[in-house]
Amino acid sequence: MPHSPTRIVACVDTGVDDAMALAYLLALPHECELLGVLAGYGNVDAATAERNTRLVLDLFDRPDIPVFRSSTHPSWADMFIPDAGCAQFHGADGLGGAVVDGLIANDGIAYGTTADNGDASADITGTPIQEDAGIVSVGGYPLGDRHANPAYGHERIHAAADTSASPDAGIAFLIDQVRAYGHDVTVLATGPLTDVDAALVKAPDIAPKLRLVMMGGTLTQPGNCWDVVAETNVIQDPEAADRVFHSGADVTMVGLDVTHQCLLSREAAARWRAIGETAAEGRGRFLAGLAEFSIAANLEADPAIFAGGMPLHDPLAAAVALDPTLVGCFDIALKAETVTGDFHGVRGRTTGDPAGLVTPDAPRVHVALQVDAQRFLEEFTDRLASLCRSVGVS
Amino acid sequence: MPHSPTRIVACVDTGVDDAMALAYLLALPHECELLGVLAGYGNVDAATAERNTRLVLDLFDRPDIPVFRSSTHPSWADMFIPDAGCAQFHGADGLGGAVVDGLIANDGIAYGTTADNGDASADITGTPIQEDAGIVSVGGYPLGDRHANPAYGHERIHAAADTSASPDAGIAFLIDQVRAYGHDVTVLATGPLTDVDAALVKAPDIAPKLRLVMMGGTLTQPGNCWDVVAETNVIQDPEAADRVFHSGADVTMVGLDVTHQCLLSREAAARWRAIGETAAEGRGRFLAGLAEFSIAANLEADPAIFAGGMPLHDPLAAAVALDPTLVGCFDIALKAETVTGDFHGVRGRTTGDPAGLVTPDAPRVHVALQVDAQRFLEEFTDRLASLCRSVGVS
Repeated sequence: MPHSPTRIVACVDTGVDDAMALAYLLALPHECELLGVLAGYGNVDAATAERNTRLVLDLFDRPDIPVFRSSTHPSWADMFIPDAGCAQFHGADGLGGAVVDGLIANDGIAYGTTADNGDASADITGTPIQEDAGIVSVGGYPLGDRHANPAYGHERIHAAADTSASPDAGIAFLIDQVRAYGHDVTVLATGPLTDVDAALVKAPDIAPKLRLVMMGGTLTQPGNCWDVVAETNVIQDPEAADRVFHSGADVTMVGLDVTHQCLLSREAAARWRAIGETAAEGRGRFLAGLAEFSIAANLEADPAIFAGGMPLHDPLAAAVALDPTLVGCFDIALKAETVTGDFHGVRGRTTGDPAGLVTPDAPRVHVALQVDAQRFLEEFTDRLASLCRSVGVS
Repeated sequence: MPHSPTRIVACVDTGVDDAMALAYLLALPHECELLGVLAGYGNVDAATAERNTRLVLDLFDRPDIPVFRSSTHPSWADMFIPDAGCAQFHGADGLGGAVVDGLIANDGIAYGTTADNGDASADITGTPIQEDAGIVSVGGYPLGDRHANPAYGHERIHAAADTSASPDAGIAFLIDQVRAYGHDVTVLATGPLTDVDAALVKAPDIAPKLRLVMMGGTLTQPGNCWDVVAETNVIQDPEAADRVFHSGADVTMVGLDVTHQCLLSREAAARWRAIGETAAEGRGRFLAGLAEFSIAANLEADPAIFAGGMPLHDPLAAAVALDPTLVGCFDIALKAETVTGDFHGVRGRTTGDPAGLVTPDAPRVHVALQVDAQRFLEEFTDRLASLCRSVGVS
């Protein structure tokens, strides 16, 4: 019996592992129909996310897939700046140096070869922050917070000041797809939930039709922010996450509970790097470069947890969107805490909403707690190797 | 086929719900053989816990069960004082006023009627804290912490200054039972894990033989302390909890994840109060008084969560010790965080130990996440009603 591919709308903040997730979606053409991509702030600023997204689609011969530049800042802020953690885990260019080091250009697939990438050339040396910028989020923390830690000093950071860009087109696209296909399209979110929340706020009617698989949060493991409580995607926009959790949408949370069990090893990266066919080696080297950068960054950050490799956060969420049987879920009414302090909790923490214990019909989020890591890692490494060999050869 | 009763050694800090848990154990003579009780600090000071424990055993005609006064303070402190929260949820006497209001005496079963309760008469108007007391824990927080909130002002609090009492006898009893019976005895801990930890430190050989069911912690729900992260029993002695979690003992954690789903209603309490037989009415009124006090205290503290009644924390753990099928567990390497702050987490939080994700043979704790609340609540209410009717009538 022929299996129809899963329709996907991806909301990304392309970064290293978003790029890998996108490549994985393209590696499974029989399983996945990627309808379009919303690229917003998160691991990088929105302009860089758009550039990086187009770069990956170009590299794997799918420049036809529509890309929208979406949210440039969290729902609670007026502007967003990537922080030092973003650069630490994704590189200043968001792709582990592939762009700034000219690796992509050397492979002849440089950004700028497609017609529609327009003004997306992110300048990491950027412009200074405007004095009147309003509330500025630095990696999820307000500018004055001691955790707001710009990567290169304020004066050198690209301040995501592209306030002329509107996320409206991308959010309208997302709404249209959900209205058209309902649960026959899956929204895959690998960054903050700002876009998904904006869609739900603008079109509340889509909530019961929306199937969302999100990378973010953590329920049973420590977080990966300063406080060791919050997870990076959720700390960027806890208000948006909390609204999405309570929206009634069908939400599967792929958080640190499972992504920290899926570590991509140096051996897997070496396998991609060793792909020798002329047509493929640029792609293999690109993927290997992403992996090697992230493997080194994670090992340095926490050798106890990441001795086995880089956690495949976003790729696992992409895989779960296509094959939910990879994970075992615990259904729970979930909230994202928005205030730190006594009687409030910890901003950015994802935890059970006690109201759900006494309200039988409270919306439940499917929280992935168990994962078939071995099967996923094998399929992920194999499929990306095959993708590198097949693209451009036919 | 006759079913042999489960041997239980209980470590309690008798409070309201510990008293109910003890009564429930006594209500199931075919299912439970209560070998002995260690009564330590926690909801109350150790002397009060011992008094209250004996009172319950006396009330239900089991003064023969040995009671040991155990730990008087956490492993990290030199002295312990109950805080305002203890009094709020358990009353100044730890039994919702049954002792201070003379209800027990009026029923003719006053504390002091058995020979061996000796010096256990807790004086809540107590003695002032000694200047040289060392590190003082007030409800789990160091004396200087803004969360250390003595119930009646320092000068009026019984300072648990009974430093002459040693927990050695009780801990030796616990060790002996585990050595003798292995997994054929279950240690039920309804307070801080100080005693269990002390036993494991003194006799590390018992770890692989020790089966522990503990009330405490929370993995997927907010906590019930100031910070809304930690749970009361664990915040009292996080160091002890963390050592127990890593000891290799067979540990089942019955935390807020499930106890907040088991709410005892006013109707159930009314049923106990209505028990009319002369011989039983003192017991029914005692249990009803405990429940009514706790139902009112919880409702006042959080009407959104506890509109349905009081959470049966310790009774559920007692029930799980006798019937593990009441809960569904998630097995995870667990830790109790001991330091609050960046790169550390939150003192008292129970969360996954990331080391367990990369260490296949790391000890796993069985964390109860699902519970058959209806079955438990029915059995609990029924059995205690039957106990009240049966005791002293035969």
